[in-house]
Amino acid sequence: MTDDPLYHVDDDLVPASEATVSVDDRGFRYGDAAFETLRAYGGTVLDWERHVERLEATCETLSLEHGLSSADLRSRIDETLEANDLEDAYVRLSITRGVQPGKLTPQSEVDPTVVIYVKPLPRGGLEGETVWGEPATVHTVETRRIPDEAIPASAKTHNYLNGILARAELRRADGTVRADEALMCDLEGHVAEGATSNLCFVRDGTLHTPTTDGPVLPGITRETVRELASETGVPVREATYGLADVLEADEAFLTNRTWELRPVATLDGEPIGGGPVTDRLARLYDERVEKRCY
Amino acid sequence: MTDDPLYHVDDDLVPASEATVSVDDRGFRYGDAAFETLRAYGGTVLDWERHVERLEATCETLSLEHGLSSADLRSRIDETLEANDLEDAYVRLSITRGVQPGKLTPQSEVDPTVVIYVKPLPRGGLEGETVWGEPATVHTVETRRIPDEAIPASAKTHNYLNGILARAELRRADGTVRADEALMCDLEGHVAEGATSNLCFVRDGTLHTPTTDGPVLPGITRETVRELASETGVPVREATYGLADVLEADEAFLTNRTWELRPVATLDGEPIGGGPVTDRLARLYDERVEKRCY
Repeated sequence: MTDDPLYHVDDDLVPASEATVSVDDRGFRYGDAAFETLRAYGGTVLDWERHVERLEATCETLSLEHGLSSADLRSRIDETLEANDLEDAYVRLSITRGVQPGKLTPQSEVDPTVVIYVKPLPRGGLEGETVWGEPATVHTVETRRIPDEAIPASAKTHNYLNGILARAELRRADGTVRADEALMCDLEGHVAEGATSNLCFVRDGTLHTPTTDGPVLPGITRETVRELASETGVPVREATYGLADVLEADEAFLTNRTWELRPVATLDGEPIGGGPVTDRLARLYDERVEKRCY
Repeated sequence: MTDDPLYHVDDDLVPASEATVSVDDRGFRYGDAAFETLRAYGGTVLDWERHVERLEATCETLSLEHGLSSADLRSRIDETLEANDLEDAYVRLSITRGVQPGKLTPQSEVDPTVVIYVKPLPRGGLEGETVWGEPATVHTVETRRIPDEAIPASAKTHNYLNGILARAELRRADGTVRADEALMCDLEGHVAEGATSNLCFVRDGTLHTPTTDGPVLPGITRETVRELASETGVPVREATYGLADVLEADEAFLTNRTWELRPVATLDGEPIGGGPVTDRLARLYDERVEKRCY
């Protein structure tokens, strides 16, 4: 693995520095593309079936019939990991609607562009160090999460400006950044999600997380954490919450594929932190990774 | 001008078929890019200063400091038109945040990617034929326009999925399309705009158009039409409208750079059509193009 990993672009492995797409690709012109962020541990992609399922849900929302089998996509990922001699990695799989005649209106006939990005990531888990280093500082922002009526939050697409505007709000005038993650609310002011993470919090021994009935991505790590909580006897509640509910929490953490479970050190400057439930769930998560991938 | 026009990508003129951007470009990964659609008539870009102004407004919304002067951008466009021997053309100018280290959070230091697309378009205007051929059939859709609190509608960006979802709704099960343009409402059900056009309508001699206080792009053609109406004594009103207001109109038309003024033949199957005010404004528009570009 060098500084210039090999990416997989359509049917070729190419050095990242030379990996390109057409400027006419709808993924570039319009962000008309689906993606998944995955984790490989010990050379194995975690929860592949769940990613396939969500990818298909995204493509259905976009009416993007890419015609590629799950096995085909998986073999491209495996090939890319192998070519880079990577065991523990970040993987991004993008599928665009490709180049089409005409302008905005999508055509049924699709010659998709498939891009697989990889990057080494520490193993984490039971025997390694966390990827995130320190618990997260989180700050709420003015930017509101796009409502489902405009673009369903369940679709994971290259239209990521909403999250970028949220993150850009964290930048101070002097260029420094005041938090690790931007927490967005929905239009009614309920807590929704971070720019690239779901929020969970613990109060009186119950695990809470904003419901996906609101504009909240059904994160796969979030889902796994809910399952682990149920299995270990921690009550789980999905609902609609105000910021005060989170600020009064005993523990809070963010989830995504890269961070796994990352405790929230502070929210809007108020200390929250992880705690015994977060630790227990993080350990169960690590054990699950260990069992599935090694 | 061949089937493979020359595009301008950063500092090079390259055949469209070979024009690419890095898969790590934020324009591709996230749609993190600003764009403008322009018209050249007789080799001259119409209303260049207004496009620069709106482009800068978009870049300010995105905190995208590209560092390129208006003169630099203009000379790239002129060079592209000349290299393609194009007088009457569609021009698209895109500026992305380029490739940056890290992931989602935008960095201040930007090496922008600049892409200029061109395509021949008939001259239209006083002496030519319209670009659009027939008046537009328009259909309202379920997809709602993204509210300004999530992404300001005044920003013209590569995050165009909202419009794509709207257009995709026009497709019937058999693959045919039931209208030329999808009309989106805001979350409250007020008429906002088409996927790529602004809506204007005429009632009792007054020109109406949804206010940009709502999620409506401040279209440059829309703005020009409002000015021409004022100059010729047609009262102009910007407000919030329901669908019924439009359906009861005497005339209706869509505006954008390519279509200029395109009468609405039907809205949700109900005939509206252009009429004397639309015709007068279209003629004044043509005269303005003639005066400014030839």
